[in-house]
Amino acid sequence: MKARVTVTLKNGVLDPQGKAIEGALKSLGVEGIASVRQGKVFDIELGTVDKGHAEASLKAACEKLLANTVIENYRVEIA
Amino acid sequence: MKARVTVTLKNGVLDPQGKAIEGALKSLGVEGIASVRQGKVFDIELGTVDKGHAEASLKAACEKLLANTVIENYRVEIA
Repeated sequence: MKARVTVTLKNGVLDPQGKAIEGALKSLGVEGIASVRQGKVFDIELGTVDKGHAEASLKAACEKLLANTVIENYRVEIA
Repeated sequence: MKARVTVTLKNGVLDPQGKAIEGALKSLGVEGIASVRQGKVFDIELGTVDKGHAEASLKAACEKLLANTVIENYRVEIA
């Protein structure tokens, strides 16, 4: 069973990395980009076939390690 | 106009960061995770309403900066 976890910064949290990318794109001459915010994606292979169990494992992984829930949101998609 | 660019490592490219996350999840007692591969996600706000133009800008951004096309794949979704 495969899953994808996407971790993005919450609204209002400053993203200096995104700002740097914005600036770099401008200096490279890429037009039409108004703003960039960077996040992380985790492609996870699960060793279980039970969807409930998979959801519980993924939630634990996000809360304990993958996302800092003070400043980040996470989204779990099970394929 | 908003878009999301997802950059992931190509198959066969080693991912030490993913391996480290796998190990950390195991030591934290999260069960059922077989493997992890980490990628990047960019949430981009575009200053254009023309879809063709937006696609061209995003392709240029990916090829020039966001993805290393030797070892990474990218996927563009325009919302």
